Amino acid sequence: MTAKDELLRLLRQTDAYLSGEELSRRLGVTRAAVWKNMELLRAEGYTIESAPRRGYRLTGVPDSVSEAEVRAHLKGDGVFGRTIVSLPSVDSTNEEAKRQGDAGAPHGTVIVADEQTGGKGRLGRRWVSPPGSGLWFSVLLRPDVLPGEAAGVTLLSAVAVCRGIRSLTGCEAKIKWPNDVVIGTKKVCGILTELSAEMEHIHYLIPGIGVNTGNESFPPELADRATSLYLETGKRVSRAALLAEVLRELEALYDTYGVSSFPEEYRSLCVSVGRRVSLTRGGRKITGTATGIAKDGALIVMTEDGEEIAVSSGEVLVQGIYGEKV
Amino acid sequence: MTAKDELLRLLRQTDAYLSGEELSRRLGVTRAAVWKNMELLRAEGYTIESAPRRGYRLTGVPDSVSEAEVRAHLKGDGVFGRTIVSLPSVDSTNEEAKRQGDAGAPHGTVIVADEQTGGKGRLGRRWVSPPGSGLWFSVLLRPDVLPGEAAGVTLLSAVAVCRGIRSLTGCEAKIKWPNDVVIGTKKVCGILTELSAEMEHIHYLIPGIGVNTGNESFPPELADRATSLYLETGKRVSRAALLAEVLRELEALYDTYGVSSFPEEYRSLCVSVGRRVSLTRGGRKITGTATGIAKDGALIVMTEDGEEIAVSSGEVLVQGIYGEKV
Repeated sequence: MTAKDELLRLLRQTDAYLSGEELSRRLGVTRAAVWKNMELLRAEGYTIESAPRRGYRLTGVPDSVSEAEVRAHLKGDGVFGRTIVSLPSVDSTNEEAKRQGDAGAPHGTVIVADEQTGGKGRLGRRWVSPPGSGLWFSVLLRPDVLPGEAAGVTLLSAVAVCRGIRSLTGCEAKIKWPNDVVIGTKKVCGILTELSAEMEHIHYLIPGIGVNTGNESFPPELADRATSLYLETGKRVSRAALLAEVLRELEALYDTYGVSSFPEEYRSLCVSVGRRVSLTRGGRKITGTATGIAKDGALIVMTEDGEEIAVSSGEVLVQGIYGEKV
Repeated sequence: MTAKDELLRLLRQTDAYLSGEELSRRLGVTRAAVWKNMELLRAEGYTIESAPRRGYRLTGVPDSVSEAEVRAHLKGDGVFGRTIVSLPSVDSTNEEAKRQGDAGAPHGTVIVADEQTGGKGRLGRRWVSPPGSGLWFSVLLRPDVLPGEAAGVTLLSAVAVCRGIRSLTGCEAKIKWPNDVVIGTKKVCGILTELSAEMEHIHYLIPGIGVNTGNESFPPELADRATSLYLETGKRVSRAALLAEVLRELEALYDTYGVSSFPEEYRSLCVSVGRRVSLTRGGRKITGTATGIAKDGALIVMTEDGEEIAVSSGEVLVQGIYGEKV
C-alpha cells in the first residue's frame, strides 16, 4: 500500500480530526510527506477539512472507481476483486479483460474504467460510456466447464446486478430476458458475456457489465428506453459501492450455482414472463406470450398459433418495455 | 503480385526454357530486374537452370510454406486460403490467428508458419514445432452458430487431414478420438481448436493443425508414439501441397456439414471404436470398449460394469495405440 492509500485508510476510519503529527507518526513519513499526499488526495476529488490545532478530517469522497475506493467498499476476503485493474480510460473493459486473461490474470480479476472509448454491446453494437456517467466493468472467470455449458453466467450476472441496485438504491430492478436490467420499463444496465476456449476447456469467461449511474438525461431517441440510477432516485450513487455490492452478489451466486445453472430468483425477476413478446425466427415474425424460463435459460413462448417454443438467443421485443408495442 | 511472384508463375507454367528476353518482355521489367528476381528465388531455395542461348528453367522447388508456394497448389476459387498469412516464425499459429481474428480478418483466413516458438497442444501442453519439420497452420472460421454448437469442427478437421494425407502419400491415416490423426499406431497430427465468442455469437473458431512431415527420427521417449510422413513413406512431401489439399477437403466438409455435425466417414476412420479403452471420470478409472460415436461427437463406451457411457471430453487411452496397454 502506498503512503497515499494508507493515509486515506486512516482518514476513513474515523469522523474525528487526526493531527498532522499523529498521521506522520502512524504513516512513518515526514509531516511534509503527509501534506503532499493530502494534496494528492484532494486532487483526486477527496474533500479533506483542515482545522488549526485539530488536524485533518475526511468529509467527502469522489465518485471514483480507483482501486483504493473500490477496496474501501469490498470488505471480507472474497476472490472476486482480489485483483483489480482500474483505468481512467480503456477501449472496452471486456477487451482489456481478454488481454489480461491471455496474459494469465487469475480467476476473479476485475477490470473497471471511468470511461470506455469503444464500449461494446451485444452483437457488435456500440455502448456509449462517457467518463463518470456509468459503472463499466468486467470480471474474468475461469470455470471448469465446457464452452457450451457456460450460458448461466449471463443470467447470474443479471441477478447480481438486480440485487446490487436494490440494496443500494431501493429501486425495483428487474430483468428483461436474457440479461438487460430494467427499472420500470427502461434499461439501466446491459451485460455482454464473452469467452475464449478450446473445445474441451474454457480459457476464460468474461461477463462485462455496464450500469447507467449518473446520467442526468438521455438523447430524445433513447429517452423512452434508457434510464439511470440518478434519474430514478434523484441521488448520486457511489459507483465503487455498487461495484463492490455486485461483485459480492455475483461471487455468492457463482459459488452456489456455477455457470451452468441459475437461481429460481431469476424467474421472479424476469419482466418478460407473462407479457406479449415478438421475435424473428428463420426470417418469420412470431408473436405470442412468454410463459416461463426453461432449465437451460431459454425463454419459453406460447405462440399465437398455439405452439410452445424455446428461444435461446436473439432479440425478443416485450410489450410495454422500452416503449415497444408488440 | 510482385515481379518475383510473377516470374515464378511463368517458370512454373512450362518445362521448356524461357529466354531472358521473353521474361523481360512478359514481366514488363528490364533484363537486369529479371536477373535480380531470379537470384531472389534461388535464395529462397528454388532451383533454376540457366543455359546459354536457351534461357531459364525451373527444376526444383523448396519445401516452403510461402504464400506463393501455397497459392501454386491452391487451384480454384475456394474461400479457405483466399487470405494467407505465411510467417517464417511465430509464437503459435493459433495465437496469430486470434490476433488476426480480433483485427477483423475474414472467414477462411489461413495462418501458416515454418516454425512455432510456442506451439500449443490441447489443455496447455507444448507442441514442439522446429523449423521445416512439420506443417503448422490455423484456419480462421466465422460460422453463424452458438458457442456450444461448434464441436463438430474438430471432427471435420481430423477427417480433412486424413483425406489430405491419404491423397498425397497413400498412407492409411486414421483418427484416434477425438482428433489425433494416426498412421498405424503412431500419431502424425494433432489438432487444437480454439474459439472466441459472445454467449449467442461466435466471433471466430480456429482449428489449429500440426502435421509431422519431415522428422527423420523422434527422441526415444516419443519413438513409440510419434511418426512423420517422411518416416512412413521414405519420401519428402511438399508441405504447401499438403496444406492446399487439407484446405480443399476442409472447405468441402465445412460446406456440407457446417460445424455442428460431422460426416459418417468419421466413424469409419476412427481407430478407437472397437478397441479397449480406459479413461478417468470423477477421479475413478474406467475401462471398457469403445462401441461408437454419438450424434454429438461423443465417444460411446461400454464399461466393464456393463454400463454404456458417452465421453465428450478428456483423455481416452486406446489399447495398442501409442503403445498403450489398457
